[in-house]
Amino acid sequence: MRKQYRRSSRRIEIGGLVVGDGAPISVQSMTNTDTRDPEATIAQIGRLEKAGCELIRVAVPDEAAAACLARIKQAIAIPLVADIHFDYRLALKAVAEGVDGLRLNPGNIGSAVRVREVVAACRERRVPIRIGVNGGSLSKEIRARYGNSPTALVESALEHVRILEKERFELIKISLKSSDVMATLAAYRKLAERVEYPFHIGITEAGTRLRVAVKSAVGLALLLHEGLGDTLRVSLTAPPEDEVFVAYEILKSLGLRERGIELISCPTCGRTEIGLIGLAEAVEKALAHIRQPLKIAVMGCVVNGPGEARHADFGIAGGRGVGLLFRKGEVLRKLPEDQLVDALVAEVENFVEGHEPG
Amino acid sequence: MRKQYRRSSRRIEIGGLVVGDGAPISVQSMTNTDTRDPEATIAQIGRLEKAGCELIRVAVPDEAAAACLARIKQAIAIPLVADIHFDYRLALKAVAEGVDGLRLNPGNIGSAVRVREVVAACRERRVPIRIGVNGGSLSKEIRARYGNSPTALVESALEHVRILEKERFELIKISLKSSDVMATLAAYRKLAERVEYPFHIGITEAGTRLRVAVKSAVGLALLLHEGLGDTLRVSLTAPPEDEVFVAYEILKSLGLRERGIELISCPTCGRTEIGLIGLAEAVEKALAHIRQPLKIAVMGCVVNGPGEARHADFGIAGGRGVGLLFRKGEVLRKLPEDQLVDALVAEVENFVEGHEPG
Repeated sequence: MRKQYRRSSRRIEIGGLVVGDGAPISVQSMTNTDTRDPEATIAQIGRLEKAGCELIRVAVPDEAAAACLARIKQAIAIPLVADIHFDYRLALKAVAEGVDGLRLNPGNIGSAVRVREVVAACRERRVPIRIGVNGGSLSKEIRARYGNSPTALVESALEHVRILEKERFELIKISLKSSDVMATLAAYRKLAERVEYPFHIGITEAGTRLRVAVKSAVGLALLLHEGLGDTLRVSLTAPPEDEVFVAYEILKSLGLRERGIELISCPTCGRTEIGLIGLAEAVEKALAHIRQPLKIAVMGCVVNGPGEARHADFGIAGGRGVGLLFRKGEVLRKLPEDQLVDALVAEVENFVEGHEPG
Repeated sequence: MRKQYRRSSRRIEIGGLVVGDGAPISVQSMTNTDTRDPEATIAQIGRLEKAGCELIRVAVPDEAAAACLARIKQAIAIPLVADIHFDYRLALKAVAEGVDGLRLNPGNIGSAVRVREVVAACRERRVPIRIGVNGGSLSKEIRARYGNSPTALVESALEHVRILEKERFELIKISLKSSDVMATLAAYRKLAERVEYPFHIGITEAGTRLRVAVKSAVGLALLLHEGLGDTLRVSLTAPPEDEVFVAYEILKSLGLRERGIELISCPTCGRTEIGLIGLAEAVEKALAHIRQPLKIAVMGCVVNGPGEARHADFGIAGGRGVGLLFRKGEVLRKLPEDQLVDALVAEVENFVEGHEPG
């Protein structure tokens, strides 16, 4: 991984997960199960953990949902954040149930007395609060003063921040979300000049998975490349595992995180050997469960393939029925082409088992 | 659209399409049909034109493929580029057949005599040449000297450039592709200091559509945000229409191009009204054929929806069976929720017909 510039931010801990102050940029997601169905929610979080999710947020729309949080918390391995809107009693209940973080805008829960109660509970259990401002839900006052501008997002966030700071509560994380990528970038840049709290980043967008994933990748790439962002969520209207998958692809592309296999293939494969594309996709899918960072080559030429891909941890080369399995440029076995993927998967799994931390 | 910094580059014309010198960043693709099957290739190019493709490249692996180029050229509306490797006779044949551009590395076609012949043909018909260097296919000499570094890509490109400049041929476009996003960015930055020729940009990667689209989005976003890139191709192992779709999503996200509908939806739709997500996706798909830039709102609340989305050209708001169709905040019609999408599509199509340039 490359050493890249990161904005300096304060360190907070959410159930053991460090966010900010140079900690690895963490990947989070949000369940789309009904929180009042704890078993379905726990099962989904289990799948998310396997996919690499490092923090999970659940919607807490009512008392019944809040009452399931302790059960969920006890059954999962990653930090749990309760997403609360307007109702401070749900926040208190969530903290009592043992959540590790809240997503709550303190300016929206009513009186200062209520804020003080929530802050007291959070302080006691060291539960950080994420302030989450969204371009689509700014207050009338903010809109009247700043329109729909990046400044509106920043000023709205600062209003909520001041409410917490007044109570001397500084376990804060901030997000500014909008569906406009360039406005989001401008907003985070401005906010970076005003506060030192860590940033949660993401792009808000509706639509199909491919389109939203691409737009999120554009927005998050620009933010991360400028060092803005300590934790992120890619919001897709798709199974949340896909959010985690896309998040890691973004971070890996930028050299900010490592995880799972990195595929290497012939640049000309599309032109010369159409079968190679299918092979590369098959390998990607068959090795999707591997977490350890490994370079895997899929080459179209048994003569030059192993040599050209000598920097790959493992590789296969196929063509005209014959296949080779190789490791760091050394041929391990010659075998029929249609057995290549299975042989590669077996070899990689065997290697990983020997190398997973005890 | 925002005015953004762009590297200043020379202007070239490829069959009427201006590339460089501040021209709109053009979207290109490559057919995956067999060029020797001109009817299949023409049909695919027709679909690509509809999707917004502005320049199309076809593989020319042999004489038979080259012999189909005139037929293809005559049947399509966008500029045609022939992708040639090693064989200068195919380049000469392609130019004689009337292609608008070549993708050819002059250092790979043999003697200076051959280069001179190709250059003479290109000069006569004003056919630009794209030099395309790929991290996976660098020469032994370059690799020995510069390893696999960004400098290797740049020096390799400059070798080819010098060969053309020696013949006083400057209708040049350059691409440096690699599967490493950060290396690609570093390479283009370096190249920008050395030449003024326009850049074709892209990321080379094998794998599934979602993963490759996300990686391309990351890489192209960083390049475009720095003003590097005059034309682009997103390479996917998927129908090439998807490449065009993803390319426009990247350019639209950055405010560099406008095309088709922009969906706006409630930020809280995932939480409050799960049906709204399906509605937004249905609208996106139903309006995918619209080229005119239009903001379309899909809101979950009939009370606040039209007002909150007053900046949208058209919108629908649904909830509990009742739906509203609105335009610039004004309600046009109240109707059953299940008729909303069809009514919106009819309204938009009607509007677009009245506004398409005669």
